[in-house]
Amino acid sequence: MSGVGEARPGGRTARTRDAVRRATLAELADKGFDGLTVEAVAVRSGVHKTTVYRRWRNAAGLAADALDLAAEEPWPLPDTGVLRDDLRAITAMVVSGFEDPGRGPIARALVGAAVRDPTTGAALHGFLVGRLAQAEVVVQRAVGRGELPVGTDAGEVVRTAVGALYYRLFITREPVDAGQARRAADAAEAAARAGVFVRDDPAATPDGAT
Amino acid sequence: MSGVGEARPGGRTARTRDAVRRATLAELADKGFDGLTVEAVAVRSGVHKTTVYRRWRNAAGLAADALDLAAEEPWPLPDTGVLRDDLRAITAMVVSGFEDPGRGPIARALVGAAVRDPTTGAALHGFLVGRLAQAEVVVQRAVGRGELPVGTDAGEVVRTAVGALYYRLFITREPVDAGQARRAADAAEAAARAGVFVRDDPAATPDGAT
Repeated sequence: MSGVGEARPGGRTARTRDAVRRATLAELADKGFDGLTVEAVAVRSGVHKTTVYRRWRNAAGLAADALDLAAEEPWPLPDTGVLRDDLRAITAMVVSGFEDPGRGPIARALVGAAVRDPTTGAALHGFLVGRLAQAEVVVQRAVGRGELPVGTDAGEVVRTAVGALYYRLFITREPVDAGQARRAADAAEAAARAGVFVRDDPAATPDGAT
Repeated sequence: MSGVGEARPGGRTARTRDAVRRATLAELADKGFDGLTVEAVAVRSGVHKTTVYRRWRNAAGLAADALDLAAEEPWPLPDTGVLRDDLRAITAMVVSGFEDPGRGPIARALVGAAVRDPTTGAALHGFLVGRLAQAEVVVQRAVGRGELPVGTDAGEVVRTAVGALYYRLFITREPVDAGQARRAADAAEAAARAGVFVRDDPAATPDGAT
């Protein structure tokens, strides 16, 4: 019911937060986490410096809030009808997210900051756990179609698919490409099909067996 | 032919380097990478501060040299006669290396430093690429025994086995345990057995087919 720019409850706060987030991401793209400062974000966002200090405190607070906001955005998950193709689409999104000339440096700076800083680390944990939980639906659908054994731990499957790529990107610092993304998806799918990720908890109730 | 403590070529330099390395690891265990300083390493090692500055420059140089020295140490690789058990032994070593009360904090500090600092990152790259190349022998033996298809990329198999664990430890910050180590090994084995890691380069010559 409110028009754009009208003073509605939460509207100004949400706009301020979004302006600070955009400025934070732009600063990360330009200067990385080591160059991220409250001062530069205040100038770039047009939000008063004392407001930014009071609410976000420091670089880690700015990076963490950018991740918190990103966590609220839905992930466009595939639904091809075939688990391997769904997983391939997901690993391709992960690789393109880091390799993209625009978003890549921001994503790399956020992960790098998270490994070294506990505040950003906790925010990345929340962001990724949320994304991974969303992605589990592709595995649950595959179980429902009979592609995978009942009792397959969907979280393990999606972590296996994307984990090998993060390992190369951030730990061994080796190049990743579309072929690696495809093999990482195929490996998770083959292992899941072989029953590696079936929960061995005897109390677990298989889907549909209630 | 030289006795301990005798002035032989290289002996004193090697002892200095080892003393600095030990002091670096002890400082990392106590204070992490953020608390690592040339001054503290000089005091702890008994090596003169100007020598440490001249040769190692800063915290990143100290951490990188500790990784370079570790890279020269042989890794006690398993040879059980069964690929899955060999891979399980390797992933169990990775997890225990990070969970060990003594070595764990040092290993975590070095990986954390490597993600944020290019000098340490290059040293970790060298260390891990060397370790992974050593570990490839367990996959090559499995190909030789007929457990895996000819043309399997051994490097991909070992990276898949350990990558899922690093992803949880350093990226999502989730706990890892013996069960996760076992499943990571089994997933790599199942994917390799299914042919996911067979090189699709038509020019590649299969082992023994020359």
